[in-house]
Amino acid sequence: MSILVVGSVALDTIKTPFGKCKDVLGGSATYFSVSASFFSPVSIVAVVGSDFPKRHIDFLKSKKVDTKGLRVIAGGETFRWEGEYGWDFGDPKTIATHLNVFSDFKPEIPLGYQNKKYLFLANIDPVLQKRVLEQMRSPKVVAADTMNYWIENKRNELIRLLKKVDIFFLNESEAKQFTGEASLMKAARAVLKFGPKRVVVKKGEHGSLLFSEKSIFSTPAFLMESIFDPTGAGDTFAGGFMGYLAASKATGEAALRKAIVYGSIMATFAVKDFSLRRLATAKKKEITKRFNDFKKLTYF
Amino acid sequence: MSILVVGSVALDTIKTPFGKCKDVLGGSATYFSVSASFFSPVSIVAVVGSDFPKRHIDFLKSKKVDTKGLRVIAGGETFRWEGEYGWDFGDPKTIATHLNVFSDFKPEIPLGYQNKKYLFLANIDPVLQKRVLEQMRSPKVVAADTMNYWIENKRNELIRLLKKVDIFFLNESEAKQFTGEASLMKAARAVLKFGPKRVVVKKGEHGSLLFSEKSIFSTPAFLMESIFDPTGAGDTFAGGFMGYLAASKATGEAALRKAIVYGSIMATFAVKDFSLRRLATAKKKEITKRFNDFKKLTYF
Repeated sequence: MSILVVGSVALDTIKTPFGKCKDVLGGSATYFSVSASFFSPVSIVAVVGSDFPKRHIDFLKSKKVDTKGLRVIAGGETFRWEGEYGWDFGDPKTIATHLNVFSDFKPEIPLGYQNKKYLFLANIDPVLQKRVLEQMRSPKVVAADTMNYWIENKRNELIRLLKKVDIFFLNESEAKQFTGEASLMKAARAVLKFGPKRVVVKKGEHGSLLFSEKSIFSTPAFLMESIFDPTGAGDTFAGGFMGYLAASKATGEAALRKAIVYGSIMATFAVKDFSLRRLATAKKKEITKRFNDFKKLTYF
Repeated sequence: MSILVVGSVALDTIKTPFGKCKDVLGGSATYFSVSASFFSPVSIVAVVGSDFPKRHIDFLKSKKVDTKGLRVIAGGETFRWEGEYGWDFGDPKTIATHLNVFSDFKPEIPLGYQNKKYLFLANIDPVLQKRVLEQMRSPKVVAADTMNYWIENKRNELIRLLKKVDIFFLNESEAKQFTGEASLMKAARAVLKFGPKRVVVKKGEHGSLLFSEKSIFSTPAFLMESIFDPTGAGDTFAGGFMGYLAASKATGEAALRKAIVYGSIMATFAVKDFSLRRLATAKKKEITKRFNDFKKLTYF
């Protein structure tokens, strides 16, 4: 089944203890769509400026990502983010954010996309996320991501959105910040009360959790010798999750758990190099092998 | 099969955001032995002063812990530790440590104990741990714990000990400190090079890992709504691990993995109240239920 993602396409400048890069391909919709493309067809709605290199669009097309909804604003500049990671690879320090064309982003869903059954609302203003959702006809699975900024500044709008969301992704600190609960379990339960059927809590190197009213799934991360750049890991995770889910056509607990594991595995490719360099070269066979290795890593 | 543990028996004074307690039963050998006692017979070698309340010895006996090796030094004072935890329940702030009789602790293994097949060297000076080991005849499984203090101050002695240890327990920060590796995987591999066949890395609320030359097992922690006092969690973990292992009589990967899960489950009882209050009242049926719940929590 086909997925629609609405989010950002950006040019990132990143510094880590291992190196730096300038104006490389980034953005939530980019990581998500390439990750999901290994499992299901995916269409993108986003905006860039006319400075956006054509080779990046060609790259997305080469991954069978449908870019008809990627608007190019003539004379506009692409959203740029500059960040720096320390040795712990925790939250990066933002050096600069230039929203550019992204500041006027009013996502319009192209004709024919309203029927998509799987929708991922990547991290943008919850007002815009809701507007996108209202343009859809009858999506089967609506998933959304957010960030600390919206939790702080658009709390009520986010809560309104959550009434219509099936699966909500957030990381551990966001879940605690959103609910004021120091216990992750209480925080997740409080988020569920806002409406989503499932809450996915991402804990980075410590794994992830899937909560519903009735069940909890907890899984460690795939153990890695080293990571190089964690940028995009969360969106790649969501991409693998939604990609697998759409491919499986199922929405039950078993499928959702496997989706979490596939999400976690896709993220291991994203963090191995700057931008989408390693993710882009992942092979379906490698992904399947890593899934099986993950089973061996966690089975008892 | 029967287990011997050598470590501390102490009186703890603890403050957490939820409350405080004074001179309650604590110590690595105490937590370990009570936890292990749910699975296997266990004997203790430790030292206390004549101020040590008889009711604590009666309590250990009620748990079928063999206390013949618990020496009471006439006129001596029991080892006391005072600590305080913050909201994150991470490493506690040590307010005071009074080693008292523990400062002259030279563990002598009582006659008849040299034949024990399972030995746990709780966190004491690695020189003493080695001395204990040398008194044993032919243990089947030797496990040891340590702490940052010995890693820093008795590094070479610890490394000498590790040549003779089968299973080495340490927490994530200790593994990194010990090896100078920022990557947990590299750190664990570097620890294995010192000699132990298995390295168990405890990550607290984030679960635990079991490393050997050939395999890795990673598991999340049993998810809990809240914790009350994490004191003794690591020793309780080791107690459940060794207790299950000794009961199973197996030493293969499958048994070790189940032992990790049982260790993790025993720790959930320890952290629910001060001292051993909740751990003491655990029922075998509850433990089995929690093991099965843990399977459901992690299965995919």
